[in-house]
Amino acid sequence: MSDKQKKPQKLKARLPRGFVDRSASDIRAVNEMTSKIRRVYEHYGFDPVETPLFEYTDALGKFLPDSDRPNEGVFSLQDDDEQWMSLRYDLTAPLARHVAENFNEIQLPYRTYRAGYVFRNEKPGPGRFRQFMQFDADTVGAPGVQADAEMCMMMADTLEALGIKRGDYVIRVNNRKVLDGVLEAIGLGGDDKAGQRLNVLRAIDKLDKFGPEGVALLLGPGRKDESGDFTKGAGLNADQIEKVLFFVGIKDYAESAVQLAELVAGTSNGVEGVDELNFIGSLVTSAGYQADRIKIDPSVVRGLEYYTGPVYEAELLFDVTNEKGEKVVFGSVGGGGRYDGLVSRFMGQPVPATGFSIGVSRLMTALKNLGKLGTEEVIEPVLVTVMDGDVDAMGRYQRFTQQLRAAGIRAEMFQGNWKKFGNQLKYADRRGCPIAIIQGGDERAQGVVQIKDLIEGKRLSGEIEDNASWREARVAQETVPESELIAKVQEILAAHAEDRKRAG
Amino acid sequence: MSDKQKKPQKLKARLPRGFVDRSASDIRAVNEMTSKIRRVYEHYGFDPVETPLFEYTDALGKFLPDSDRPNEGVFSLQDDDEQWMSLRYDLTAPLARHVAENFNEIQLPYRTYRAGYVFRNEKPGPGRFRQFMQFDADTVGAPGVQADAEMCMMMADTLEALGIKRGDYVIRVNNRKVLDGVLEAIGLGGDDKAGQRLNVLRAIDKLDKFGPEGVALLLGPGRKDESGDFTKGAGLNADQIEKVLFFVGIKDYAESAVQLAELVAGTSNGVEGVDELNFIGSLVTSAGYQADRIKIDPSVVRGLEYYTGPVYEAELLFDVTNEKGEKVVFGSVGGGGRYDGLVSRFMGQPVPATGFSIGVSRLMTALKNLGKLGTEEVIEPVLVTVMDGDVDAMGRYQRFTQQLRAAGIRAEMFQGNWKKFGNQLKYADRRGCPIAIIQGGDERAQGVVQIKDLIEGKRLSGEIEDNASWREARVAQETVPESELIAKVQEILAAHAEDRKRAG
Repeated sequence: MSDKQKKPQKLKARLPRGFVDRSASDIRAVNEMTSKIRRVYEHYGFDPVETPLFEYTDALGKFLPDSDRPNEGVFSLQDDDEQWMSLRYDLTAPLARHVAENFNEIQLPYRTYRAGYVFRNEKPGPGRFRQFMQFDADTVGAPGVQADAEMCMMMADTLEALGIKRGDYVIRVNNRKVLDGVLEAIGLGGDDKAGQRLNVLRAIDKLDKFGPEGVALLLGPGRKDESGDFTKGAGLNADQIEKVLFFVGIKDYAESAVQLAELVAGTSNGVEGVDELNFIGSLVTSAGYQADRIKIDPSVVRGLEYYTGPVYEAELLFDVTNEKGEKVVFGSVGGGGRYDGLVSRFMGQPVPATGFSIGVSRLMTALKNLGKLGTEEVIEPVLVTVMDGDVDAMGRYQRFTQQLRAAGIRAEMFQGNWKKFGNQLKYADRRGCPIAIIQGGDERAQGVVQIKDLIEGKRLSGEIEDNASWREARVAQETVPESELIAKVQEILAAHAEDRKRAG
Repeated sequence: MSDKQKKPQKLKARLPRGFVDRSASDIRAVNEMTSKIRRVYEHYGFDPVETPLFEYTDALGKFLPDSDRPNEGVFSLQDDDEQWMSLRYDLTAPLARHVAENFNEIQLPYRTYRAGYVFRNEKPGPGRFRQFMQFDADTVGAPGVQADAEMCMMMADTLEALGIKRGDYVIRVNNRKVLDGVLEAIGLGGDDKAGQRLNVLRAIDKLDKFGPEGVALLLGPGRKDESGDFTKGAGLNADQIEKVLFFVGIKDYAESAVQLAELVAGTSNGVEGVDELNFIGSLVTSAGYQADRIKIDPSVVRGLEYYTGPVYEAELLFDVTNEKGEKVVFGSVGGGGRYDGLVSRFMGQPVPATGFSIGVSRLMTALKNLGKLGTEEVIEPVLVTVMDGDVDAMGRYQRFTQQLRAAGIRAEMFQGNWKKFGNQLKYADRRGCPIAIIQGGDERAQGVVQIKDLIEGKRLSGEIEDNASWREARVAQETVPESELIAKVQEILAAHAEDRKRAG
């Protein structure tokens, strides 16, 4: 590049990398969805509680996978008293802080839920955002796996309350202890092997993405991806890899139960884990949840390091087309597990806990695909146009608008530059306004208003396809006395509603 | 302090300074309130749109008052590509960025609303938080003050929709241009006086807090507060101070109109500002909003620097008792104004805009004071207790719980350590559970369950005061066949509802 003098840069309007603005339809869809989720959680006896977006960095702990960036996956800054604060990366670690800080006032078991934004300081990529919403439910002070079983049932009920059919989803359950037993059985027990165990765990978590061959490479020598980037492997030998792959490859838990029990026999963790899995299986079955809804599946791992027992995941089973045009199973929309150590870090005593998190925007995408959201109609406002700008005329337009609103009709007066009338009709058209109200000098003198039925107008001019079964055409424009304005608008809106009903 | 060896510090659970956790009742109250506000805004023809919590620092601009801290009132950090990002300090500057970035796709006038958290990197203090929620509405691409008039009417309608009586609130309107005219008239016009003008503006904004005497000091030599801290003054002379105080002291706009017109005569801004104020006054009056709801009041300033025309503020007029036990007017719960320059900063063309912001937690406090929130009853869950921990018993308890839920009853199985049964009843008591379900070995053998009516139990034992008009006592404990569990629970809950109704 030449060394020419640069022009002074104009202030550029741009979103920070990895962040997005949310549209009206997404916001409405999320509100609809979260209010349905909330109803299920309340029904299960959970109450809301929320924490702020910041925590002291030490209180959050370092439990994130893939800490390949300078400040390890989180956004941090130093307060003016030199203490480091971070934006939360999930809703679980802050809940643990909240419980520990208010331990004397809180009645255990503490059953709560919360929706909120979390932040990941990751390299942004397509579909990978640095701010996203999670919706969590947790029971703190619940030592038995019946609490984990309850979480699985609540996830199933939530998905059904959102309109996802039985058979289109499954809640998969595993137990970290069983996995620990397998690792112990292949010689990866003990504190000194903690790092290697974590690498194995992360390799397994990639099963969906890379398949058994890819995972075998990650468990062994390492794996080179399409771009040539090399990921170091966990360094297991062929026999060890085979045993891990047997375990995560189990498709029918009942069929493989004996072989699995043999594999983990003699490891205390493994035996306990298998017992817990069986206990959960019995409980959910007694309550009427069969394996088509809640299924024991040893391939479930969950990426977060703080899980200590049962882990569970909600998976949607229907196909969607991905960016490459391939049909793929929609996959996970949330999950969680038992984190008995997370509150205890702050306390002198054990505080067992379990909970799960729903990825709000992923679940919303799934529900939109299924046509289960945004079914509530949004009627665009009736537009009161502006023909004259003097204070009397404006006052009258404003009065019409307020009268419409007072009658329960969504309405607005045109607030842009009114001098080109064509702009006002273009606005009404682009916005999808159903009706425009017009009063110029002549109409004003006679005390009347023109009412334009913009939808009938489009229908008559053939601009919109007419799905409604045949009916006589209405007039698309009428002039009525001011006193009849409200009644006439109501009549036209009712006709539109009737047309939409006919068109199904 | 001695130099003794310190113990290794245990991880401490503590909220960062200036941040708070939100309780169930606050969360429910805010949800109830924001959904009512949303309904009014939608009715006025506004649609939701939201931006992320981060913006590039330069895009936010520096419009905050009181930038007395290192990073000037905002939380900022540097991204890994060296760009500075900040957490938004309001919802207006990010909206301006959003409009500029999507200018070609957006249909003007652009009428939107949004609720969200904003952050101020200020010294925390009592009642002064570093994260709080605002609820904004804006019209971008609206050059005429009819858009400002609409905002004032919408604020009034919103407060009434929330249950605030006419007479208990007022929307006060002023115009920055009039103030500019006054400043020009006293010799503070011109670019070189911009700093001094800003100081005057901030002094006036303290009128509520310090009264005319305090503001006179801030306008003149400066003011020392009770703690001895000295705030530098704007350095005006006595005549200048008198004129400013006359202006901001105007109580009856109509009465002082002539004197005000004289003061600003010859200043182009002042004359235009007075015309705009009168136009707004006429418009809202035509639409039926008299001075008891929307009132022109020159003492309104608004602290933010980016306002360019009309400014407006929603004030609650009823008395509350402050921390010192004094009766004070509740005061401002939100406000806004015209910010014609904020979008234009990014563009080669003018983009006029106006909007306002509601302080969600302040308004919620006001509504709670008035008893207008939290009126929706939350019934605590029916508790299914645990007497035995074997898989059969647990399965049965779990099944009872799911049956209750399936029948629409809020219910939970006890998830804590069940071995001390007393703990379970204590939990039910503290939580306020209306009913406890009990099944031990004997009951199980007979296929029955015990149902404890905990509320009737308390009433009979005199633990709760009985506000209901006299009725015969019910039995507080019954044993029924398992098959009658649901019907019996429904019957008891219905009796509780009836009692609450009688008690008013």
